[in-house]
Amino acid sequence: MAELPGPVLIVGTGLLGTSLGLALRRRDVEVLLSDRSPEHVKTASGLGAGHEHAGERPGLVVVAVPPDHVGAEVARALGAWDAVVTDVGSVKTAPLRALDAVPGIERYVGSHPMAGSERSGPLAASASLFDGRPWAVVPHAGSDPAATDAVTTLALLAGASVVRLSPEEHDLAVARTSHLPHLLAVLVAGRLADAPPEHLALSGQGVRDVTRIAGGDPGLWEQIVTGNAPAVAGLLTQVRDQLDVLIDAVTVGDRGPLGEILERGVAGTRAIPGKHGGPSRPTASVFVSLPDHPGELARLFADAGASGVNIEDVHIDHDPARDTGLVELLVDETWADHLQSSLEAGGWQTHR
Amino acid sequence: MAELPGPVLIVGTGLLGTSLGLALRRRDVEVLLSDRSPEHVKTASGLGAGHEHAGERPGLVVVAVPPDHVGAEVARALGAWDAVVTDVGSVKTAPLRALDAVPGIERYVGSHPMAGSERSGPLAASASLFDGRPWAVVPHAGSDPAATDAVTTLALLAGASVVRLSPEEHDLAVARTSHLPHLLAVLVAGRLADAPPEHLALSGQGVRDVTRIAGGDPGLWEQIVTGNAPAVAGLLTQVRDQLDVLIDAVTVGDRGPLGEILERGVAGTRAIPGKHGGPSRPTASVFVSLPDHPGELARLFADAGASGVNIEDVHIDHDPARDTGLVELLVDETWADHLQSSLEAGGWQTHR
Repeated sequence: MAELPGPVLIVGTGLLGTSLGLALRRRDVEVLLSDRSPEHVKTASGLGAGHEHAGERPGLVVVAVPPDHVGAEVARALGAWDAVVTDVGSVKTAPLRALDAVPGIERYVGSHPMAGSERSGPLAASASLFDGRPWAVVPHAGSDPAATDAVTTLALLAGASVVRLSPEEHDLAVARTSHLPHLLAVLVAGRLADAPPEHLALSGQGVRDVTRIAGGDPGLWEQIVTGNAPAVAGLLTQVRDQLDVLIDAVTVGDRGPLGEILERGVAGTRAIPGKHGGPSRPTASVFVSLPDHPGELARLFADAGASGVNIEDVHIDHDPARDTGLVELLVDETWADHLQSSLEAGGWQTHR
Repeated sequence: MAELPGPVLIVGTGLLGTSLGLALRRRDVEVLLSDRSPEHVKTASGLGAGHEHAGERPGLVVVAVPPDHVGAEVARALGAWDAVVTDVGSVKTAPLRALDAVPGIERYVGSHPMAGSERSGPLAASASLFDGRPWAVVPHAGSDPAATDAVTTLALLAGASVVRLSPEEHDLAVARTSHLPHLLAVLVAGRLADAPPEHLALSGQGVRDVTRIAGGDPGLWEQIVTGNAPAVAGLLTQVRDQLDVLIDAVTVGDRGPLGEILERGVAGTRAIPGKHGGPSRPTASVFVSLPDHPGELARLFADAGASGVNIEDVHIDHDPARDTGLVELLVDETWADHLQSSLEAGGWQTHR
């Protein structure tokens, strides 16, 4: 790991900036904090994220401000200090265009940790926010390799896993894996907004999963989506073309193109990398009925743990009828039968 | 509860038919089984779902065959016996149209349990498949009220929670809450199918949740979607109109209409009824880092249980970097602080 040029100045002590300060303090990195809000800086330093910036010369500046202000703050930092400068914004090409003629641009390397929360502000921060999360390090064509190394070290010290991408690749990648899913979840959720309650009573886990992220902050998403307009508009246009094919196929009952679209969706779900970045292993579900009381989940996981099977994911399904829950345990498919029979032997009602 | 006219003949011993037989046998209902595949009937009766139909006169016939064959099987059942007839198919108006002139149509009442599995066939069946799930009971204009009562009793005996809807309402409801989410998840997943691996490395929990259901069986979904073509095409057309507005807004950077669409999505997520059918209560997330070993989840849920807080839902996040996991516990938002401090006191690394 390359050495980190210190101290690190964090500009913007919201959720991401404060969390980064806390994460770096775990590794004894010297952290300076600044924010337009003196209150936020006090809160962040009170939490142990670093100390208030009093003019010290930083070795590395991290701009952690809302997307709309990233370009201006990066330019200001490049001009103010002879330091490496990065940001943690969700889009990369638009701020870079705004920096085109700025002296010192070789000291700028963008970055983007794939971490967040539905909460915001320094009080929502956590030293473990970046642990094990992907963190895109995004040098531009003119970036100094030493600056790229410094930002890579920053991400590693924060506990994240580094993925290096060019600005154009990064913006297309997040358009696909984050912005498009968000906007289509919003369109599905939008169709529910004025549905009669008796229709919504048929909602199952599927629609809940598809629409969950649509509850995110509209103000933040306006900035993200408009900041990545070309990539997002390109993908939305591809989706519209597919949607036109789909509408025609459904309307005339033509199963050929409908089947092709459905098959392509299956292929897409399999393309998402598996846990721990390895190839996606096929999982199978074991459903368990349980009373909806605090102690029952613990008892279930104790029994599942005793079976020796590693649980890959869990869903708790909603039971509109009574005070019981249905828990879906996802496990490597070669282990599903073993888990199910272990749980049945322990008196649990299960099904596949 | 009205009396169930018995015995119950189940036509089709796949996942749903066999599960229904098992569920009814728990309540000592006499169940007869038939299927085009003698092998399936033997398997289902061997599991205890009922005994092979040998010509006995049923009081209630449940047609549990693939969507494409529902209309023909319902017509055959209405002609063969003076019994109440229902089906468990995912769409209701199209099969009904095919039954328009069939004598005995007053004895037919459609139904649709909101339960399933990614597996199929009698071996995947379970007596608890319908426990607490919504079950739509769908009389048509000419249905005999006694037949509606009989089908309602069937759903209740199976353990489900009854939602009564007209065929048109039902098909619009599932178009909104099931078919549209499925198809848009498919379109999002389709855009991932040929993305480069380094782009997919940025995939987080959001895109996984949005695309999960897109992995469902394309052959089955072809039948479901074409069977509900008018309602599905209508909603898809509404979505295309919204998508056009969205593409324009993103392309020109017009935040007004973009914000409206985002706000409407938030409203939609809030419209989905909460657990146990009550109004949706606001939940908050507590994230916990834990080693990815069988015993750790059990220990976490034991500690969470000891805190007295009821866990509403769980996600296990994927960690591409190392052998640890990140668990998201969703709880009533008024309990999140208490849960977090309890877990921190127990030595867990948490964040909000």
